[in-house]
Amino acid sequence: MANWQHGRESRNARIEAGAKLAQGKFVAEADVTRLMEAIIRPGDRVCLEGDNQKQADLLSAALLAVDVAKVNNLHMVQSGIVLSEHLDIFERGVAKKLDYAYSGPQSARIATMLFGGKIELGAVHTYLELFARYFIDLTPNVALIAAVSADHDGNLYTGPNTEDTPTVVEATTFKDGIVFAQVNEIVDHVPRVDIPSDRVHFIVKAGKPFFVEPLFTRDPAAITETQILTAMLAIKGVYAPYGVRRLNHGIGFSTAAIELLLPTYGEKLGLRGKVASQFALNPHPALIPAIESGWVKQIHSFGSEVGMDSYIRARPDVYFTGPDGSLRSNRAFCQVAGLYACDMFIGSTLQIDLQGNSSTVTTSRIAGFGGAPNMGSDARGRRHPSQPWLQAGLEADPGGVAPLRRGRKLVVQIGETFGDKNIPLFVEKLDALALAEKLKLELAPVMIYGDDVTHIITEEGIANLLLCRDANEREQAIRGVAGYTDVGRARDLNLVKQLRERRVICRPEDLDIDPLDADRNMLAARSMKDLVHWSGGLYAPPTQFRNW
Amino acid sequence: MANWQHGRESRNARIEAGAKLAQGKFVAEADVTRLMEAIIRPGDRVCLEGDNQKQADLLSAALLAVDVAKVNNLHMVQSGIVLSEHLDIFERGVAKKLDYAYSGPQSARIATMLFGGKIELGAVHTYLELFARYFIDLTPNVALIAAVSADHDGNLYTGPNTEDTPTVVEATTFKDGIVFAQVNEIVDHVPRVDIPSDRVHFIVKAGKPFFVEPLFTRDPAAITETQILTAMLAIKGVYAPYGVRRLNHGIGFSTAAIELLLPTYGEKLGLRGKVASQFALNPHPALIPAIESGWVKQIHSFGSEVGMDSYIRARPDVYFTGPDGSLRSNRAFCQVAGLYACDMFIGSTLQIDLQGNSSTVTTSRIAGFGGAPNMGSDARGRRHPSQPWLQAGLEADPGGVAPLRRGRKLVVQIGETFGDKNIPLFVEKLDALALAEKLKLELAPVMIYGDDVTHIITEEGIANLLLCRDANEREQAIRGVAGYTDVGRARDLNLVKQLRERRVICRPEDLDIDPLDADRNMLAARSMKDLVHWSGGLYAPPTQFRNW
Repeated sequence: MANWQHGRESRNARIEAGAKLAQGKFVAEADVTRLMEAIIRPGDRVCLEGDNQKQADLLSAALLAVDVAKVNNLHMVQSGIVLSEHLDIFERGVAKKLDYAYSGPQSARIATMLFGGKIELGAVHTYLELFARYFIDLTPNVALIAAVSADHDGNLYTGPNTEDTPTVVEATTFKDGIVFAQVNEIVDHVPRVDIPSDRVHFIVKAGKPFFVEPLFTRDPAAITETQILTAMLAIKGVYAPYGVRRLNHGIGFSTAAIELLLPTYGEKLGLRGKVASQFALNPHPALIPAIESGWVKQIHSFGSEVGMDSYIRARPDVYFTGPDGSLRSNRAFCQVAGLYACDMFIGSTLQIDLQGNSSTVTTSRIAGFGGAPNMGSDARGRRHPSQPWLQAGLEADPGGVAPLRRGRKLVVQIGETFGDKNIPLFVEKLDALALAEKLKLELAPVMIYGDDVTHIITEEGIANLLLCRDANEREQAIRGVAGYTDVGRARDLNLVKQLRERRVICRPEDLDIDPLDADRNMLAARSMKDLVHWSGGLYAPPTQFRNW
Repeated sequence: MANWQHGRESRNARIEAGAKLAQGKFVAEADVTRLMEAIIRPGDRVCLEGDNQKQADLLSAALLAVDVAKVNNLHMVQSGIVLSEHLDIFERGVAKKLDYAYSGPQSARIATMLFGGKIELGAVHTYLELFARYFIDLTPNVALIAAVSADHDGNLYTGPNTEDTPTVVEATTFKDGIVFAQVNEIVDHVPRVDIPSDRVHFIVKAGKPFFVEPLFTRDPAAITETQILTAMLAIKGVYAPYGVRRLNHGIGFSTAAIELLLPTYGEKLGLRGKVASQFALNPHPALIPAIESGWVKQIHSFGSEVGMDSYIRARPDVYFTGPDGSLRSNRAFCQVAGLYACDMFIGSTLQIDLQGNSSTVTTSRIAGFGGAPNMGSDARGRRHPSQPWLQAGLEADPGGVAPLRRGRKLVVQIGETFGDKNIPLFVEKLDALALAEKLKLELAPVMIYGDDVTHIITEEGIANLLLCRDANEREQAIRGVAGYTDVGRARDLNLVKQLRERRVICRPEDLDIDPLDADRNMLAARSMKDLVHWSGGLYAPPTQFRNW
């Protein structure tokens, strides 16, 4: 008779082996590596949590220390490659294959290791896509996760950074996998149950709180006047005419500038209540002035942000919070919200080519995708209409038959024609292509494809790609806002002029915006201290952002 | 000073009002309606769970009985409109506005009520899209949910039909909403914790178990030889050449026929292990022979299916199960898996037009979308390659530059040229258009758009729309498999011949399939009893499917 219980038997054997090193579910910190050697088998798929912000750092260090004769050739399936240990395990031979989504802080080293063949790459995903595969073909055998506290039964409290944890645990535990959590403390009662105890097999109390990176904090002091100009263009040229209420903002100074202009410039334009009221967004400190000015109705978050806890607790009408009062974030649901319930994604990028394809990959850095490709793509499964979405659809296909014509997600790329270190934003060919060739990838790591982008905003103006009728118009619309980059200077002056007449290209003056008005005085907050002030002292910036 | 705690204060006031009618969280069945009058306010957004299968039927009946002076004008936000009470509440004025996803059994009545203006329609969604809006602009104030059991603290066990519950509860409870659950029984220890008690505010023990509809059971005895022929075409003409391993099957006899041909016809073609190994799928009884024959590696499920519990418990290597041994389903995650981790969606429809748009709406029935538009759309946010996906992308865009060319999701529509009651599958104009006009909808209720469909399979052959180079070719490819319908007879014989030469159209003989071989003897199971036999007696079909 066939055995249909291989997974269950394996799980039970692992739990039994682990139990010898634990008291009930609880493991001493000194025994963590030995426990891993007991519960992880060569070739296992392992999720070493690894989120956008929260890191299971104790478990990362412990996994690095395993006996490679016992634990090796692991297939790591985790969204974030953030800590050096996440790559060290490949150097040591503990791990061999990698499927992931984001590697911001390790983007240079991961590139080197991929070039050197130290890592066998499965694929670079967007978060939701990796989560999807957790249920189909990349289900973890073992999940090594991080939480704030556990009670004596093993119920876990993740605190504001719930992030990926419920998704990772669901995929692992319900497919006969093992869940091993590090917690900051063990308490009699957890403030709320983020993960029920029967989904958790082992727990270790870490000597120090898990590491969280403040990824979404932008110091208003560093916002340039060019960024303020592009933010004005975005608000007056995109938010207002489409009436965009439900949206996501990418990470970066350009969108931080938009957030800080809503209560000043946006107010002057009479847009409060008409745009930017519902967000799929982390708790960006830069949004505090807009929240305090009554702009924001509701925010659902992927994760939290360091320093924002007290502010969030005091603003439950805006944020999702638990009975304990702290934020309940959830990356999977927030990505779903960004995909299907938002009318706009706006974010920055490193390179844009002549077709509008964009990428954050350079020949020496592979940052991964994070969530942008998911939210910055046209959700073709969407079936509910909204005015911004219908209007974008109409612009793209004016000849279409109304009730059969779909709408379009607004996907906006915003940036300066010359970015950091004066590197041009616009290129003839993405570095991603050279990288794909070098690594023999079947798919170049394109962040957002040109056919999904609807608008490109630079200090030179807005290119509305929805209004372009062919590839040539599209290319010239892009060149037409590419400024003094090589791409911009190679424009067809005549066609660009025509595109401007058709309002495919809008210059600042076409929107009655005087670039000289783009002044830092327009920012609702001009420093971190201003943000703290706006928050009524509730926002507590991380040390690296304090200069007082 | 501004108040940022409106939601919390409202929640606390409701809990306090409700507490007077409860003992702790527990409410007597006789007090349920009065409790609803205490916790629900006019105009509230309410999710009356309302899934694809599981129904909070006690709470539906109780909501219908409220005093309309106290509870009225509710905005119902729930995926399924399944019970008559779901519509009765609109007749009575308890509810006014509706946002939903699926209304199979109520499709005729909902149409009548929409025509009569008895319901103010928000939009018809696909499941994941509605869930997305739960976090952005359709967050429920009150969720009325169904579970199998509760313990004395209020932890809930949903059993195999977890379905929408975790998603509904997460959106409601973490945004200061009230969660009220009906359970079949109250126990000392729940078999597993599907919903932690701190997310649940009130609980009632129902006099009888909640209603579950066996929606995914297809009696093999009712499968026709034409359906067997289309299933053979699908397996040999699509599954095999693309090597489709990760997929979703729609509901219907055509895909049931495929499931029942895998262990016979598929085996003969040597496809075991090469196709159909990982599914996002409910526990279809028709898949039992393929599972028993070693075809299926893993299935993640949206919900469960009546009668499949013991079988699932005995096959944990295939299904996702909890520590209690029963299925853990999860509609949100399974829809995500269907969107991003599957290479193919294949399903049936009622009408297909000349552009390939399809709809299950008729002028008198609005069945809603369910999950098909989500899974049957090209996931443009996808960034991981696979052979089926790359091959489909290559066929669609042979001139594209390889590493910049995206792949394509395979979206296959399968059906007989004349369906039930000899109604033609192919039409010049979808009934959905007439309906959109009648209801003044901005968007016609199209199930799957033509530009997302890659293949149409009928008994006349396979039309591969990926290989069509313009709208005319596309139309003729569709006409070319539309048989003796008006659409089929109006084909351009010459162009259809050319399309066949280019293998855009494949006839059965082009695939070496003899239609005379399409015999019911090829089905691995020809009756419900055969399925029970294959399952080793573990599958227990619902009464309506038993004739022994």
